[in-house]
Amino acid sequence: MKKFVNDPKQFVPEMLHGLARANPGTIKYVPAYNLIMRTDAPNDAKVSIIQGSGSGHEPAHVMAVGRGMLDAACPGDVFSAPPVDYISETTKLLRSAKGVLYLVNNYTGDRLAFEMAAELSDAEGIKVETLIINDDVAVSDSTYTVGRRGVAGNFFVIKAVGAASEKGADLGQLMTIGKKVNGVTRSMGIALSSCTPPAKGVPLFDIAADEIEIGIGIHGEPGRRRAKIVSATEIVTLLLDAIVPDLPYKAGDKVALMANGLGGTPISELYLLYGLAHDQLEKRGIKIGRSYVGEYCTSLEMAGASLTLMRLDDEIEALLAADAETPIRVF
Amino acid sequence: MKKFVNDPKQFVPEMLHGLARANPGTIKYVPAYNLIMRTDAPNDAKVSIIQGSGSGHEPAHVMAVGRGMLDAACPGDVFSAPPVDYISETTKLLRSAKGVLYLVNNYTGDRLAFEMAAELSDAEGIKVETLIINDDVAVSDSTYTVGRRGVAGNFFVIKAVGAASEKGADLGQLMTIGKKVNGVTRSMGIALSSCTPPAKGVPLFDIAADEIEIGIGIHGEPGRRRAKIVSATEIVTLLLDAIVPDLPYKAGDKVALMANGLGGTPISELYLLYGLAHDQLEKRGIKIGRSYVGEYCTSLEMAGASLTLMRLDDEIEALLAADAETPIRVF
Repeated sequence: MKKFVNDPKQFVPEMLHGLARANPGTIKYVPAYNLIMRTDAPNDAKVSIIQGSGSGHEPAHVMAVGRGMLDAACPGDVFSAPPVDYISETTKLLRSAKGVLYLVNNYTGDRLAFEMAAELSDAEGIKVETLIINDDVAVSDSTYTVGRRGVAGNFFVIKAVGAASEKGADLGQLMTIGKKVNGVTRSMGIALSSCTPPAKGVPLFDIAADEIEIGIGIHGEPGRRRAKIVSATEIVTLLLDAIVPDLPYKAGDKVALMANGLGGTPISELYLLYGLAHDQLEKRGIKIGRSYVGEYCTSLEMAGASLTLMRLDDEIEALLAADAETPIRVF
Repeated sequence: MKKFVNDPKQFVPEMLHGLARANPGTIKYVPAYNLIMRTDAPNDAKVSIIQGSGSGHEPAHVMAVGRGMLDAACPGDVFSAPPVDYISETTKLLRSAKGVLYLVNNYTGDRLAFEMAAELSDAEGIKVETLIINDDVAVSDSTYTVGRRGVAGNFFVIKAVGAASEKGADLGQLMTIGKKVNGVTRSMGIALSSCTPPAKGVPLFDIAADEIEIGIGIHGEPGRRRAKIVSATEIVTLLLDAIVPDLPYKAGDKVALMANGLGGTPISELYLLYGLAHDQLEKRGIKIGRSYVGEYCTSLEMAGASLTLMRLDDEIEALLAADAETPIRVF
């Protein structure tokens, strides 16, 4: 296994330690519950927003903690849901008079853990609401989900509810905004390679030197089909042919367009894909209002990419344009 | 070859097209000379700063164009110096009453191209100065250089002279600042894998499944030695053991610390390395004043990382802290 790693069991804690060391003053690492939180949270004037999931998808979600984004993140081990008691302890630490919002990508393990944590929090008298994100059009059920998976489109939800919560929106308003954003967001990805979880030590799946997995899941779970690799233009076409009709996005719509890297694909290739997707959407009569290119939700060092579209309106655009400060450049 | 690519010859133009599409209003792509420039450049109230090099190192340098950083970048083909006439035409487009500063990483091909372009610009009556960057401690001469190579530390030079030029510094002052920053900056990198230039179609070099290349060059050129892979802690130690005594950085010094990814290494591993390096430097009595984790200078999809240290003083810290706006998050 070729990775920068010490003891694989310490991979996540050592990453979180580094994250906190690189961002003193804005971010705090609490090793006892393996959580990352804003140093200035909680704040009774705003709802606390918490996201959790397995690790290995960085920058999601631990590097999305900061002003205008998440108040805390509960990472599990690589590709494993966070423990219920850690979520529960995080919720206690982030308790706010305005309540706590859980953002959960739709994976069965994560949903169960957050449901149980919500019950524990309720017993503590903490007001909690949970918003499920499911932007991946690739498959309707999957290895780890009933219903669609949540992938990189998740970042638009974080950004929108994060901005609204900074302005004092209450829990009900945040749920409305989050559901609205999730409802107009669609994604699909393609893998060129597999990836190796540190504790596993071998690749998650095999893929031939000339093959791609269309509709890949972010834990290496199967998508729609295997195919021979084709040109970047053809890849963009087949992703947009899956994404655009799904909502559908129509001629005259204005959208945000994201080209997300899965971890091992260089930024040069992501910009190349972005440019092709931008041009193809314009030819379909769809206007690009905002552009996002980089890594937002990854699968360790997997080579691959996903495209996400979100339909914009004035309310959403204002929330996306609001100032934010996290370890990654978000918007 | 598994890449998001159409015709390999169009890899760089298609990437630049995407970059401009994603950053309308701030960045312009001029296909005739394959250059990226600020939409608001040139400006006679500031020196125009231009950097060029082979492509394949993104975000260096085309994604470092913007307010407070570069005014333009001249990329060549992947791992090839930009053509002299393109540099010359870029210089004409960026002509400013205050002059033009070339930033050149120390590779023989790039130096020759920029020297010839400087002569052509001189004949046009354009005032040009050239600053050479050579922060890589790995080898004293290399496949492509007489003297040390320029690598990720280059970003500190761009940021410092970019900030100073926004405040109206003249060409002489920028040369002084740039030389000072380069003089206190040292880097070294390690590769875990090779990489494949699109037009070549095969990996640049072979490396065994349990081997690393210590002191790798950003074009895959050899470093100090091959070794069996070791733990992340041992890798950080051997990098710092090469970097720290070189300047030397001493107990009591305050530094900026950068963990740079070479293209195929996920951000999780970079933060893990960063945290280990931060701790080791503190143990050596060196204080970390500013932290940088991400991709700054890459080798396509190569798995690997480099560490860079820069000794800080009040002048440099203020320049690093100044506001800037480019496609990548810089500082």
